[in-house]
Amino acid sequence: MGNVRNILFIMCDQLRADYLGCSGHPAIRTPNIDALAARGVSFTRAYCQAPVCGPSRMSFYTGRYMFSHGATYNNVPLRVDEWTIGDYLRPLGLRTGLVGKTHFQADRETIARLGIDVAGHPGLVQCGFEAWERDDGLHPDLSADPNLRYNVWLRRHGYEGDNPWHSAANSAEGPGGEILSGWHMRNARLPARVRAEHSETAYMTGLAMETIDRLGEAPWCLHLSYIKPHWPYMAPAPYNDMYSAADILPANRNQIERQAAHPVVAAFMQHEESRNFARDEVRETVIPTYMGLISEIDDHVGRLMAFLGERGRLDDTLIVFTSDHGDFLGDHWLGEKEMFHEEAVRIPMIVVDPDGRSDATRGRKDSRLVEAIDLLPTFLDALGGEAAPHRLEGRSLLPLLAGEEPGDWRDAVFSEGDYAWRHARYILGLAPDATRAIMVRTERWKHVAFAGFRPQLFDLEADPGELRDLGEDEDHAAIRRMLEERIAGWLKARRLRTTMSNEAIAARTGTAKQRGYLFGVW
Amino acid sequence: MGNVRNILFIMCDQLRADYLGCSGHPAIRTPNIDALAARGVSFTRAYCQAPVCGPSRMSFYTGRYMFSHGATYNNVPLRVDEWTIGDYLRPLGLRTGLVGKTHFQADRETIARLGIDVAGHPGLVQCGFEAWERDDGLHPDLSADPNLRYNVWLRRHGYEGDNPWHSAANSAEGPGGEILSGWHMRNARLPARVRAEHSETAYMTGLAMETIDRLGEAPWCLHLSYIKPHWPYMAPAPYNDMYSAADILPANRNQIERQAAHPVVAAFMQHEESRNFARDEVRETVIPTYMGLISEIDDHVGRLMAFLGERGRLDDTLIVFTSDHGDFLGDHWLGEKEMFHEEAVRIPMIVVDPDGRSDATRGRKDSRLVEAIDLLPTFLDALGGEAAPHRLEGRSLLPLLAGEEPGDWRDAVFSEGDYAWRHARYILGLAPDATRAIMVRTERWKHVAFAGFRPQLFDLEADPGELRDLGEDEDHAAIRRMLEERIAGWLKARRLRTTMSNEAIAARTGTAKQRGYLFGVW
Repeated sequence: MGNVRNILFIMCDQLRADYLGCSGHPAIRTPNIDALAARGVSFTRAYCQAPVCGPSRMSFYTGRYMFSHGATYNNVPLRVDEWTIGDYLRPLGLRTGLVGKTHFQADRETIARLGIDVAGHPGLVQCGFEAWERDDGLHPDLSADPNLRYNVWLRRHGYEGDNPWHSAANSAEGPGGEILSGWHMRNARLPARVRAEHSETAYMTGLAMETIDRLGEAPWCLHLSYIKPHWPYMAPAPYNDMYSAADILPANRNQIERQAAHPVVAAFMQHEESRNFARDEVRETVIPTYMGLISEIDDHVGRLMAFLGERGRLDDTLIVFTSDHGDFLGDHWLGEKEMFHEEAVRIPMIVVDPDGRSDATRGRKDSRLVEAIDLLPTFLDALGGEAAPHRLEGRSLLPLLAGEEPGDWRDAVFSEGDYAWRHARYILGLAPDATRAIMVRTERWKHVAFAGFRPQLFDLEADPGELRDLGEDEDHAAIRRMLEERIAGWLKARRLRTTMSNEAIAARTGTAKQRGYLFGVW
Repeated sequence: MGNVRNILFIMCDQLRADYLGCSGHPAIRTPNIDALAARGVSFTRAYCQAPVCGPSRMSFYTGRYMFSHGATYNNVPLRVDEWTIGDYLRPLGLRTGLVGKTHFQADRETIARLGIDVAGHPGLVQCGFEAWERDDGLHPDLSADPNLRYNVWLRRHGYEGDNPWHSAANSAEGPGGEILSGWHMRNARLPARVRAEHSETAYMTGLAMETIDRLGEAPWCLHLSYIKPHWPYMAPAPYNDMYSAADILPANRNQIERQAAHPVVAAFMQHEESRNFARDEVRETVIPTYMGLISEIDDHVGRLMAFLGERGRLDDTLIVFTSDHGDFLGDHWLGEKEMFHEEAVRIPMIVVDPDGRSDATRGRKDSRLVEAIDLLPTFLDALGGEAAPHRLEGRSLLPLLAGEEPGDWRDAVFSEGDYAWRHARYILGLAPDATRAIMVRTERWKHVAFAGFRPQLFDLEADPGELRDLGEDEDHAAIRRMLEERIAGWLKARRLRTTMSNEAIAARTGTAKQRGYLFGVW
């Protein structure tokens, strides 16, 4: 298992794979993340299992596809018996905890029904983590908790009000001293009312460092889970003013996309965020700040790496840098995420293995197809844990990091959606259980099967921008059928027998007779 | 909801649909079950969700397909948060309990991991039932419990030994007084060492009646779950001698089936039970006793109905008579079950609704496609409970009982298998998670998709005996593809988001903004 002793699992929220220096963005400055990439492997075709925060994260944390773990949207409770990272790593001796966001919802109805004592099992309401700091990072005044630790901390640093998360960290100030809310995108270029050292990103990074020091010599897995560059798009100075409209990537969209839009995509195009991001003014206002928020994270990644270096932890800590999904930012006439274009479903994934076995691949870009659910098996592999293939649906990346070329590496990735909670469902007149989508992406093709509608199909070789939907193209009927068969095969192999391991089965196969059950004996 | 107040849910174990008088067997005598059929509706094309005890029963009890509930074989624990009959019916005021077999395995590992207090939630280890008498009915001496209540009861009635379940109820006596075990099929024609009034079937029936009396005026759902006619094939006098070889159905098999057997079926043909049932001598010895065990159940059904009549309960009790699966008994050169021919996967299903709404259909045979998972929705419908379509995958039969002709009634049924526990897995050289099968049956076709192998295909119109497997027939490639598409569509619609109801989703759809989450607002 090499010399990996700790896991630092850094996740951003809504960070597109192509908004990093090391992934080729021409203007953004992310020298510290680039340095991570230079020390490890960047997986350039890594995919989230759901382009929405909650279900994507539950896939990262459980190592299972979205409809396997069943928490198919934000705030859908995760089943109480799903194993999460902590359940796997704690028996290996690691303190496994959280600083930041999980978007986890406990199944409190079942917890009450089964009479489970949550006090005795605090992980049950924290996605299996020790909640060193749990903060899902979205606190509109309507539901904000004045006792939120970040709010308390901000007040201690001089920011007034019940909810300085909003009034200070995610708002700017008008010329007359009035609060200009970051919830309104037109304010995105203004500086937040917090100083940079008091931003959410700074706060979480500081807590991560304090936690690592506090843990002392105990091995740990720290999930440092930033809320940014997720909206509200509001950055403290100097990050609000670091980039200009000239620095943003051009919009990836054309008129044909609107005219011949897939019905579900067309419904999403009618959402407020899509209509607004369709306007250049909005993109030119918001995206520079989105970039500033990324550069801010980069600065803190640098700060954190310097800290780890001082503590001697770079030599025994496996580091991951990733995101739960991307952000359309107006591409394809869409805002937010949820659909399956590369902008939303492809994620950054940098893995730094400190062990010598991975020396040959440092700095490499690896274009093999990788999924978010591969991380948990990678952690287990690095720490000498068991693979649990009756539950875990991903695959360890360690062989790829070691430069191996497994002949049976996957040739397709899958992602899922369930948009019942979005206004699009009303537009389309669907019931809450008729809103599912499954994406399969192979080397060349991306096919999205929507319940009740024709599929989308893109030829990623001929059309890497996914501007021409071949979902109804007669010449591609056989391709679509082939991809539907891939989906069917994948569905048949879902890991849904979670309560008995393969080893336990193997120990029982064909043993009825020796246990005294003499059926069929003459 | 009419006048249904109680549910009597009678299940046999391994009772073939075609071994009843009312289903057309020419020799068997089942006048009391036939009388039930005359008072209700016999569904002549009813299918279990898995042709194996445990997973089939978990589908009956949860109302969900096999890989949806995940307990894919005998002794695979059911997930702790799966809702079972009792969870649905208790809130409606019904005492919901068990007399007999469930083959339920509690997920004790998870119960311990979550620190659940089982004493406070006894249903958790009893499949959600009150265990008025839990007895799974198979007690080889190697694992028998001398304190099993049936053993204690037998000893009280004069049967000696640690395990009179075996030595008395499921053994015969040789000329020299020696015990001849019912586990050995060659002894099947001999009378069991218990008198008829002390058989398992008699015992369970008596307990059911006592329980109903004890419950008094409280509404109830009683699951009376007989172990018979399941092996050991041993019946007390006079049932052991009630039928002869002349009374059994001819073997449904031919030589082509053996020569061109599907690889998985061929592996099952090598099992001991299949090799033995391939011999006429075995069939002629075993099946008459199998029939006797059925006639014994029939007598006790009669006894129970007379009792209910005396107590005035026939007017307010919905009665179901069914079985968890069938028995090959040598048909298709197979013993036991697990494959998907009609002999194994089709089940008897008689439903008697006491309400006047169903008067028009009494005595009717209904050939619409029906599944085991339809029963729980039927109970809920009859009692005015909620349908819970985010979990329940079946459909109420009440409209069919009322003589309606729903235009959207299903046109396909599904059943699943997972044979990792059987020796066939070794013969085929498969891993424990590469042993899955899915059956779809439509009006005309039956298609079984086996992981890793070609499918089976039968034309039930041209070949109702399923003697000609068209799984490789070139002329049927389009049919097979159509049926694979049916399976894929069914897999996509699995109810796996179990922790949030459709109503809860509908209450949240499009509400982010009013909850203060102003994303995408300019």
